[in-house]
Amino acid sequence: MAEFALIQRYFSGLSRPGQDVLLGIGDDCALLQPPAGQQLATTMDTLIAGCHFLLDADPVSVGHKSLAVNLSDLAAMGATPAWALLSLSMPRIDDDWLQGFVRGFRRLAGQFGVQLVGGDICQGPLSITLQLTGFLEAEKAMLRANAKPGDLVCVTGTLGDAALALRLLQAGEDPGGLRARLETPLPRVDEGRMLADLGVRTCIDISDGLVADLGHICERSSCAARIEVARLPLSSAFRGHAGDPETALAGGDDYELCFTLPPSLQPELEALPFDITCIGEIQAGQGVELVDETGNSLALPRGWEHFSS
Amino acid sequence: MAEFALIQRYFSGLSRPGQDVLLGIGDDCALLQPPAGQQLATTMDTLIAGCHFLLDADPVSVGHKSLAVNLSDLAAMGATPAWALLSLSMPRIDDDWLQGFVRGFRRLAGQFGVQLVGGDICQGPLSITLQLTGFLEAEKAMLRANAKPGDLVCVTGTLGDAALALRLLQAGEDPGGLRARLETPLPRVDEGRMLADLGVRTCIDISDGLVADLGHICERSSCAARIEVARLPLSSAFRGHAGDPETALAGGDDYELCFTLPPSLQPELEALPFDITCIGEIQAGQGVELVDETGNSLALPRGWEHFSS
Repeated sequence: MAEFALIQRYFSGLSRPGQDVLLGIGDDCALLQPPAGQQLATTMDTLIAGCHFLLDADPVSVGHKSLAVNLSDLAAMGATPAWALLSLSMPRIDDDWLQGFVRGFRRLAGQFGVQLVGGDICQGPLSITLQLTGFLEAEKAMLRANAKPGDLVCVTGTLGDAALALRLLQAGEDPGGLRARLETPLPRVDEGRMLADLGVRTCIDISDGLVADLGHICERSSCAARIEVARLPLSSAFRGHAGDPETALAGGDDYELCFTLPPSLQPELEALPFDITCIGEIQAGQGVELVDETGNSLALPRGWEHFSS
Repeated sequence: MAEFALIQRYFSGLSRPGQDVLLGIGDDCALLQPPAGQQLATTMDTLIAGCHFLLDADPVSVGHKSLAVNLSDLAAMGATPAWALLSLSMPRIDDDWLQGFVRGFRRLAGQFGVQLVGGDICQGPLSITLQLTGFLEAEKAMLRANAKPGDLVCVTGTLGDAALALRLLQAGEDPGGLRARLETPLPRVDEGRMLADLGVRTCIDISDGLVADLGHICERSSCAARIEVARLPLSSAFRGHAGDPETALAGGDDYELCFTLPPSLQPELEALPFDITCIGEIQAGQGVELVDETGNSLALPRGWEHFSS
């Protein structure tokens, strides 16, 4: 009863029973009607206080980020977000914290049409698990395993901003405009959908850093990737804070999309209404290779050697 | 990479890509094909060490129970289990613990056709969040909100066994045959489906205790329930350990089903191939009332007064 009252109090209005949500929060299960002919893309991520976010992190940004990281997974498949289930564990009922969390969650959920259809609240160490499902037309999913030699490697937006913001904060400096990239990253949901519509079939979201995540594409597609470091898209704020290419290559938490596509699609790509940079190409072989403007190999930053094997 | 290797090592073979699982563990999302014309029932529960299970609990039973409590939610709707996502947080990689957990999980998943399609492993306090989705024919869901005055109130199996086992264990006594009811409860999935097929439209699983859970039905259905305490189904093991009616009324963790149905369905109910006991009826009013054989009201055990208002 206490749990149900809590859920009613904080999370009511986050679903609108109707076409696809037949029954939301309040029964043993939610009851959902998947749209005819669509596939479902589904993902779940846990954020733990002290590991994925600081214990004293702003609850608004924790609420935002717990949804954003899952939305980013759907974006990487090209799916349209639909239903979320939330499990919230907290040491005690902290009204201020919960209100902040819900504010951050609600804003992003509204922006991307996410309905909260179920979940639970229990007592325990502060952590959040969010499960998210989206819709997808058949044969339109973007997978890690579809890259082919000759494909261009491209990324959305700019790289390294979140990692640089974290480093500045840890050093006691003000990250200025970079802070939002770390605390309230905007998942590339619309961009992912447009790429899938255009015919892109290989994509991953950059959560662990470009080299690591592109490495996943290489591994699953049994191919290599060659990246020209000089072509990495860097924001002016990143350059202004003297960000270096290593940070853009290794920095996690950007939640941009990294995707590959045949060069024949490049003209259509350039017509899309958001920033895309082609940074290299897929080749036969394995692992990620970094090169300078003249094509000379650069060493992979220390610690990533295992991604190239 | 470490996470992915772990997942591969322990959880491979827990999904069989095919008809409804287009893509399992290993990409940003799992890709699923819901069966045409079916609805989805979905639920998510978190088990936290030290709260929902003892820190030194047998990992086989923790693996079993993390799936069982969610299966029980699907059983209460009358749904057929299909897809699970698992998030596992643990302080360090404990090979023995993981092997035990997976053994318990795998056995139950196999029994009920559950495919593990995604999830994550991360470092943190020991806890498990499982999200489970099942299929359901349209209009066949059993809901908490459908009870009507005149309905019979029935339960599957026997009540109080899990709570009595816990009490005996806490007192340092051997609960004997009752131990399995606590540690490896068998969710009433097949029973729930048969009840839904028969036309039962009101059901809840007994996780918080009969009075509490039947109270949820009363609240959601805006009605009262009158229970004859002498009719509660008690196992011979329960009687052998001198279990009392209070334990059967209040004991959680039984994962039996409590359901209501019009008396016209009673003949068909009696033909079902599992134990069902009718223990009372739904009336106008609110809250759960307990009566003895002569119809005299009994006091609700202390602590549950709020369920009757």
